Amino acid sequence: MNVFTLHGTSGSARRGTLRLTHGTVETPAFMPVGTVASVKGIEPRELRELGAEIVLANTYHLWLRPGLDTLTAMGGLHRFMAWDRPILTDSGGFQVFSLESQRTLDDDGVTFRSHIDGSTHRFTPENVVGFEEAIGVDIAMVLDECVSLPATRDAIAASVRRTTLWARRAAAAWRGDRTALFAIVQGGLDEALRAQSAAELIALDLPGYAIGGLSVGESRDDMARFTQFTAALLPTAKPRYLMGVGTVRDLIAGIDAGIDMFDCVYPTRSGRHGRALTRAGEYNIRNAGYTRDARPIDPDCACAVCRTFTRAYISHLFRAQELLGPRLLSYHNLAALAALMDEARAAIAADRWAAFRDATVAASATG
Amino acid sequence: MNVFTLHGTSGSARRGTLRLTHGTVETPAFMPVGTVASVKGIEPRELRELGAEIVLANTYHLWLRPGLDTLTAMGGLHRFMAWDRPILTDSGGFQVFSLESQRTLDDDGVTFRSHIDGSTHRFTPENVVGFEEAIGVDIAMVLDECVSLPATRDAIAASVRRTTLWARRAAAAWRGDRTALFAIVQGGLDEALRAQSAAELIALDLPGYAIGGLSVGESRDDMARFTQFTAALLPTAKPRYLMGVGTVRDLIAGIDAGIDMFDCVYPTRSGRHGRALTRAGEYNIRNAGYTRDARPIDPDCACAVCRTFTRAYISHLFRAQELLGPRLLSYHNLAALAALMDEARAAIAADRWAAFRDATVAASATG
Repeated sequence: MNVFTLHGTSGSARRGTLRLTHGTVETPAFMPVGTVASVKGIEPRELRELGAEIVLANTYHLWLRPGLDTLTAMGGLHRFMAWDRPILTDSGGFQVFSLESQRTLDDDGVTFRSHIDGSTHRFTPENVVGFEEAIGVDIAMVLDECVSLPATRDAIAASVRRTTLWARRAAAAWRGDRTALFAIVQGGLDEALRAQSAAELIALDLPGYAIGGLSVGESRDDMARFTQFTAALLPTAKPRYLMGVGTVRDLIAGIDAGIDMFDCVYPTRSGRHGRALTRAGEYNIRNAGYTRDARPIDPDCACAVCRTFTRAYISHLFRAQELLGPRLLSYHNLAALAALMDEARAAIAADRWAAFRDATVAASATG
Repeated sequence: MNVFTLHGTSGSARRGTLRLTHGTVETPAFMPVGTVASVKGIEPRELRELGAEIVLANTYHLWLRPGLDTLTAMGGLHRFMAWDRPILTDSGGFQVFSLESQRTLDDDGVTFRSHIDGSTHRFTPENVVGFEEAIGVDIAMVLDECVSLPATRDAIAASVRRTTLWARRAAAAWRGDRTALFAIVQGGLDEALRAQSAAELIALDLPGYAIGGLSVGESRDDMARFTQFTAALLPTAKPRYLMGVGTVRDLIAGIDAGIDMFDCVYPTRSGRHGRALTRAGEYNIRNAGYTRDARPIDPDCACAVCRTFTRAYISHLFRAQELLGPRLLSYHNLAALAALMDEARAAIAADRWAAFRDATVAASATG
């Protein structure tokens, strides 16, 4: 299954198209996160309006609630959430291993407790890809083992071994008709293990490859170095997805390393907390200086929120704890990243990526 | 100032049009409540889409936050909240007297403490109407005195006396160029005092009259009886506004008594708590029976939410405590009341009000 066309490069930055069951996605692309089948506070029609072409959901969360039976009874995830364009599901490995639940691990799979009701569940490479195909997503991530850093080299090596083993089993179980399977390169901050992980997964010749285990608390320098190092190991003809990245600077650094796809809760989570993302940096709308500021959130943004509302009004909504505040700022932040990717694609297509990159980083005081 | 045209009646139900500075409002009309300059969770463009022609805001809340200086600096309430159609502001009397703050009352006005920061403020009939005109609303309610029931006849009589005194002073202070001033009939559950209050206020020949002090905890029978009794006292040529009413049955009873305008937090508050308003009654979307229900919230509703989402999905959003759930259900509930009023207007215009009334009440199992 080949889902990617690379149109060209500018430096290491790549311009491409993903052709998926529910539509095409121009890359580089930022994917809004709808963990439990909802991008927090935002309707599908707004996602289309603000320029999103693909959204992400999470297998761990959907498995627990509403669960496979409900999702299949309702005609799959697309119909359930009323989003008719591409969806990627993370496997839930990250949630099982690092965040949400007690778990016991063996080579066959991982048993964990639900964070919702304490019930026991088991993930295997086969049942995770089976779930993702059954709910009809466009891109399914394999179940991987994420180690929490810092970890010993032995622990990281063990996770690489198991991630490869599980990717092979996922690939063997994969039906492969409507859902593209992506593997996830692990290996922590160890070049040899990253190279081993990449080589073993590339041998499976899957439709795409992700870089996992970064943007999890390591330094910005380490993240940039290992993004570059790992991206350079991946096949040119396949899409490359850097998981969990979503600030303006990190997106620019990722595109500069040859990454095609990104996801992050950052625009919506920061929006819910009053943090505005703009091309001139970030700020908190609650700060006193904005209470009579008649400008939009970002004077250079053309999104529906910036065309309609002032900083003063959105600042008031946050002070009054009105639901509309988080909603409007989440919308703007998603639109801001969609516009950034749109301009990045245009800059790559015109082979002026380096100038765009440098100007964008220089303009962005923070983030 | 004459803002109302009565087109006709069907029984006691009235079909009319309000012509206000920011547009016309077809009556009977339900006004969504945007207490602090935001209908909770809903954007202005959605209010237009779902059929709202006028929204309500609250002087008490806006006075405290963002305050007069910010609202005038931002070009008035319409520009502040990005709503270019009519706005009515309640005076805040209800909040000052019964809900939110400690207060001391004299014939000149009322001094109260902010529920936000404890600061001291003073309302007079003059400064309340001055505030409402300064922020540019289409309809301003006079400052009235609301007594909490049960109260002695002397206490209710004192509130009627003061409400009339204050309405006279508000009328004298009223600039009267762009904002229509409405008085509020008080008098509790006492026919003689209601009649006295109505007569004294009608003598002021203001553009409209409201019935206050109902829908505050009295029995449904008392509310219906005093709505009918008071509405019948009011001039035929002026619009009649029953404050705080918003269930399907109470709206039908109000229209049946000759009321033209209503407001209530009910559709948005109940929507935030998972309660769905339909023409066949109300239900809580969290109930177990809806988790795999592929029907829309109301199969007979044509709103954008009912055209797009299932009960199963909205039920999931509430279980997962997703922001989108309260938003979607609030939207539907507002659209349901807007559609009810639209059909009521058509029924009155076609002189088939009684049949519509009876069919609607019969279909509505609750509410």
